[in-house]
Amino acid sequence: MKVSILMGSDSDYDVVVGAIESLKSFGVESEVRVLSAHRTPHETVEYVQSAEQSGTEVFIGCAGKAAHLAGIIAGITTLPVIGLPIKTSMMGGLDSLLSMVQMPSGVPVATVAVNGAQNAAILATQILALKYPELREKLLNYKAEMAKGVAQKNENVQKKLG
Amino acid sequence: MKVSILMGSDSDYDVVVGAIESLKSFGVESEVRVLSAHRTPHETVEYVQSAEQSGTEVFIGCAGKAAHLAGIIAGITTLPVIGLPIKTSMMGGLDSLLSMVQMPSGVPVATVAVNGAQNAAILATQILALKYPELREKLLNYKAEMAKGVAQKNENVQKKLG
Amino acid sequence: MKVSILMGSDSDYDVVVGAIESLKSFGVESEVRVLSAHRTPHETVEYVQSAEQSGTEVFIGCAGKAAHLAGIIAGITTLPVIGLPIKTSMMGGLDSLLSMVQMPSGVPVATVAVNGAQNAAILATQILALKYPELREKLLNYKAEMAKGVAQKNENVQKKLG
Amino acid sequence: MKVSILMGSDSDYDVVVGAIESLKSFGVESEVRVLSAHRTPHETVEYVQSAEQSGTEVFIGCAGKAAHLAGIIAGITTLPVIGLPIKTSMMGGLDSLLSMVQMPSGVPVATVAVNGAQNAAILATQILALKYPELREKLLNYKAEMAKGVAQKNENVQKKLG
Amino acid sequence: MKVSILMGSDSDYDVVVGAIESLKSFGVESEVRVLSAHRTPHETVEYVQSAEQSGTEVFIGCAGKAAHLAGIIAGITTLPVIGLPIKTSMMGGLDSLLSMVQMPSGVPVATVAVNGAQNAAILATQILALKYPELREKLLNYKAEMAKGVAQKNENVQKKLG
Amino acid sequence: MKVSILMGSDSDYDVVVGAIESLKSFGVESEVRVLSAHRTPHETVEYVQSAEQSGTEVFIGCAGKAAHLAGIIAGITTLPVIGLPIKTSMMGGLDSLLSMVQMPSGVPVATVAVNGAQNAAILATQILALKYPELREKLLNYKAEMAKGVAQKNENVQKKLG
Amino acid sequence: MKVSILMGSDSDYDVVVGAIESLKSFGVESEVRVLSAHRTPHETVEYVQSAEQSGTEVFIGCAGKAAHLAGIIAGITTLPVIGLPIKTSMMGGLDSLLSMVQMPSGVPVATVAVNGAQNAAILATQILALKYPELREKLLNYKAEMAKGVAQKNENVQKKLG
Amino acid sequence: MKVSILMGSDSDYDVVVGAIESLKSFGVESEVRVLSAHRTPHETVEYVQSAEQSGTEVFIGCAGKAAHLAGIIAGITTLPVIGLPIKTSMMGGLDSLLSMVQMPSGVPVATVAVNGAQNAAILATQILALKYPELREKLLNYKAEMAKGVAQKNENVQKKLG
Repeated sequence: MKVSILMGSDSDYDVVVGAIESLKSFGVESEVRVLSAHRTPHETVEYVQSAEQSGTEVFIGCAGKAAHLAGIIAGITTLPVIGLPIKTSMMGGLDSLLSMVQMPSGVPVATVAVNGAQNAAILATQILALKYPELREKLLNYKAEMAKGVAQKNENVQKKLG
Repeated sequence: MKVSILMGSDSDYDVVVGAIESLKSFGVESEVRVLSAHRTPHETVEYVQSAEQSGTEVFIGCAGKAAHLAGIIAGITTLPVIGLPIKTSMMGGLDSLLSMVQMPSGVPVATVAVNGAQNAAILATQILALKYPELREKLLNYKAEMAKGVAQKNENVQKKLG
Repeated sequence: MKVSILMGSDSDYDVVVGAIESLKSFGVESEVRVLSAHRTPHETVEYVQSAEQSGTEVFIGCAGKAAHLAGIIAGITTLPVIGLPIKTSMMGGLDSLLSMVQMPSGVPVATVAVNGAQNAAILATQILALKYPELREKLLNYKAEMAKGVAQKNENVQKKLG
Repeated sequence: MKVSILMGSDSDYDVVVGAIESLKSFGVESEVRVLSAHRTPHETVEYVQSAEQSGTEVFIGCAGKAAHLAGIIAGITTLPVIGLPIKTSMMGGLDSLLSMVQMPSGVPVATVAVNGAQNAAILATQILALKYPELREKLLNYKAEMAKGVAQKNENVQKKLG
Repeated sequence: MKVSILMGSDSDYDVVVGAIESLKSFGVESEVRVLSAHRTPHETVEYVQSAEQSGTEVFIGCAGKAAHLAGIIAGITTLPVIGLPIKTSMMGGLDSLLSMVQMPSGVPVATVAVNGAQNAAILATQILALKYPELREKLLNYKAEMAKGVAQKNENVQKKLG
Repeated sequence: MKVSILMGSDSDYDVVVGAIESLKSFGVESEVRVLSAHRTPHETVEYVQSAEQSGTEVFIGCAGKAAHLAGIIAGITTLPVIGLPIKTSMMGGLDSLLSMVQMPSGVPVATVAVNGAQNAAILATQILALKYPELREKLLNYKAEMAKGVAQKNENVQKKLG
Repeated sequence: MKVSILMGSDSDYDVVVGAIESLKSFGVESEVRVLSAHRTPHETVEYVQSAEQSGTEVFIGCAGKAAHLAGIIAGITTLPVIGLPIKTSMMGGLDSLLSMVQMPSGVPVATVAVNGAQNAAILATQILALKYPELREKLLNYKAEMAKGVAQKNENVQKKLG
Repeated sequence: MKVSILMGSDSDYDVVVGAIESLKSFGVESEVRVLSAHRTPHETVEYVQSAEQSGTEVFIGCAGKAAHLAGIIAGITTLPVIGLPIKTSMMGGLDSLLSMVQMPSGVPVATVAVNGAQNAAILATQILALKYPELREKLLNYKAEMAKGVAQKNENVQKKLG
């Protein structure tokens, strides 16, 4: 039950860490690598192939600008690949988003919101939960907690409004 | 091994049919419904809940413009939800894309390319393949066929160029 | 003469408070709830239905990114629903705006400017004024005060220019 | 119970006619004028003032490109003004949309989707229904018919899928 | 030889002041008014008409968001109207720009860059120079000074580079 | 009383012809040249300089995509330069528009709407009218005719509506 | 003196053929391959490496949507890589453009205009001309012919205008 | 083996310096000039012509907003011209990017990422390496160092993750 998280640069770490922690909270192991589709293409291919053989079941590719990393992973593996586009100064990350989501027919990348690290982790967990039913309950709990959190926020707002 | 495909309008059928056929080619059953987040909100909630109970393992939500359908499904279920944004005349479907992919933290939608029906189906199959290993080989075959298709296209181009 | 204001997250409070205060200045009661189309879908449906029964006459839905809240309210009720899109880092809130305004035929959301809380409140008041004529005069006064405010600003600029 | 519909050019007629017919179906009278914020500014001001005096309760302003018409109406009256942006070749009507929705504080325009004529009419009817309760039932019927329409479309799709 | 500068809000003053000073440096008188197309529509019409009669020969309209001010002036007068769009958080002022430049056929607004106050002033001076030849020489001097300024900046850069 | 119209390519002719005819209707002579900022830079500079000496008083530069023509003219002359951006397939001509309007401080281009040929001509005429008062009356007549045209269109719509 | 042209799909052929013919007109050999960054990643890597060894001196990568092909080539080779983005329905090819041009530091792609096949070929020739001086004269001739073409187009327009 | 770097304003220096230093690290001489397509058009033409005669083999044009500088250089010379668009507040530099990359057929600008100074330098070096083989090895070393840098960053992240 392992998710491999690849980030194109260590400058993405502050975003990616949200995914790592979220996976941990669901009891899902993550293996993290800084690997670049453009700067270390061979190492990226090798890692994806070896990760698949050593038990990775879902990939998360995290990159910004001409964000090819997730697409490259998806070209190599048939495992599900989640794309996590990073915010940039070009229209708030529209470059990252379009570079990830607009994949050609045959090679999907499951793209989440710009900087949506937690959603990448939850999506990975939802996917794994098909095979590992113990995750389903955790996801249901998470959903319930989230609803409680909204209720709590509502109470806070009511107090503010007096 | 069932995928539920919801489309917001029957005008989306011409796009969605690509996903249905692609799933069929992988031997994955699909259940198709026209249901609208805005016009039939209660029926949508009911269907998602009943589909989950009757064996659906992945949802595909297909909608255009203020494309809320996939997000609404994701709010109800903890199963993976794939978002298939439909092309519109507003910047080629940027409205559909942003309405699907920019989901708030906690409720991911796995978004594929605008009008990327085949990718929605392949992504669903990749997700199911974690649990149903017989799909893995079909996906590997598909990938191999796709590569052969590129090689064939290359030959065609070489002939054109004489 | 009650307006229900729903916000998707308490992080929207700083914007929403402008609408609350503006409604108050017109003598219109507001009922505020933190409710999320995605995190608390059932509670949202229940609240909208109960609010309608307990006297709400206009809804304001305030949300950012894939901003479905106002659209979801509009799917449930036949009361007028005002959409208040929140500024995001994605092109200044274009995601929020398009997710709100591009509603499908049959289910309108009356969308105001990004972060335009005061305009959401004034629009709600204009709508209520059809039924409650005492609000008409207040709106006319507001318009007159606004014009005076411009005149005052003009004087300030003349002074600056010496 | 009258809605005044202003369009900036008779080239907008093909869109506007959808609003006229929709209002008619709800039993709401509409008064239609071709009037331009830029080509006939004085006539526009005069019409808005006289319409208000002769019973108009909601305005719909329909225009494209630098679409000022709805905003200009909103500057004159305190009645609710609905903005209907027309599709253009500039990013599918983003110019029309932004020119309408991004109104300054104090002067709201209730903007609906690009070319969303029917939604402009339904929104006008929802607003009028606060004062004229007989419209409420019609709106509820409309909502029910719309849900039936989705069900019918679903049946058609099921037949297609055999 | 007078230019009338209208700004929609005193928050635009910090931008507009660049135009005032630039006009002054060319010896062109400017008359500045805070007037809003939406908040003070009648005063705006009156001012434009009276300004034209009291010697204004060029208008500059400065506004942001749904920036109608320049277009409204152009609807009233046949004098040249320069549009100065103000930067906003919506894609850096694309809303202001499109609301100004995309005027319908028959009513042009001579639009300059977002926040391009100095260019608004220079354009006004270029227009006036057709009638007042003494401005031509000043513009030629300005152009020559500008070229010298570039040469000076080049020298500074050479020094930095050592 | 001469306007020089430069177009970057003869493919722009179908748009430009609208400006030529509009100028003719005001009795303003136009001199038309196909000249390219990039393909014939030297000829462009020479023409602009000679045109200025032979009586041109306003330039119109018409180009698409990376539309530099108007900006290049503005770099050479101190006469007013009107920019007419041509529609392209890149977001409806946003490339042409931004390449024209976003000029650096000191070198304005008076930009009109995408494909707004008639407005380029009217703006040129408004500018010339400062010096040639006989044009003022023609512009007033044009404005009056335009208003009549709107009234006529209104009548047509009334007839359609029966 | 060989240029390798890779296209992601044979649907790009109609655009790419313009580059092939343009190179031919300069006497530059081109080797064309249909190869996909996502569908045939290994073959792409192999081809780029072998092409470099068999004399390719410039690469042109042509692709649309999430257009990774040119970037992938640039990750493998140190030869200059020209990116030719293909027009799509997503904002006229903005997705292709941003996916190509926004490359991370260290791995440039020399991007030309959307569908700018001829410019890709000319840029390749300009690059080769540094090493092969005989190309310089051909480029100068091309530039001269291009200027003559503009002059011819100007004559045609003069005839049209009578 | 000289690269000429032109910047439109000394405010671009902080970006450009990255290109200068990068070229230096490859042992490539750079000649830097502040020259403006609009403010010093004649000096720009003269410099480009003289630079070509005094040994420049590649140009880099760096500019923002209506960024014509690189296009203007490309109109004069047949040497390769690299365009370096500068970030602006207009959608993160989309104006600069489109003004550079969307060049008309016949006059290419090899555009790199917004603010991608280092990539401009590397692309220039890649181009020069065709003629000066000693640069090839440096580029290979650079690529190897870059890969090592990614490996180092990966190690740092592993340490952080403990």
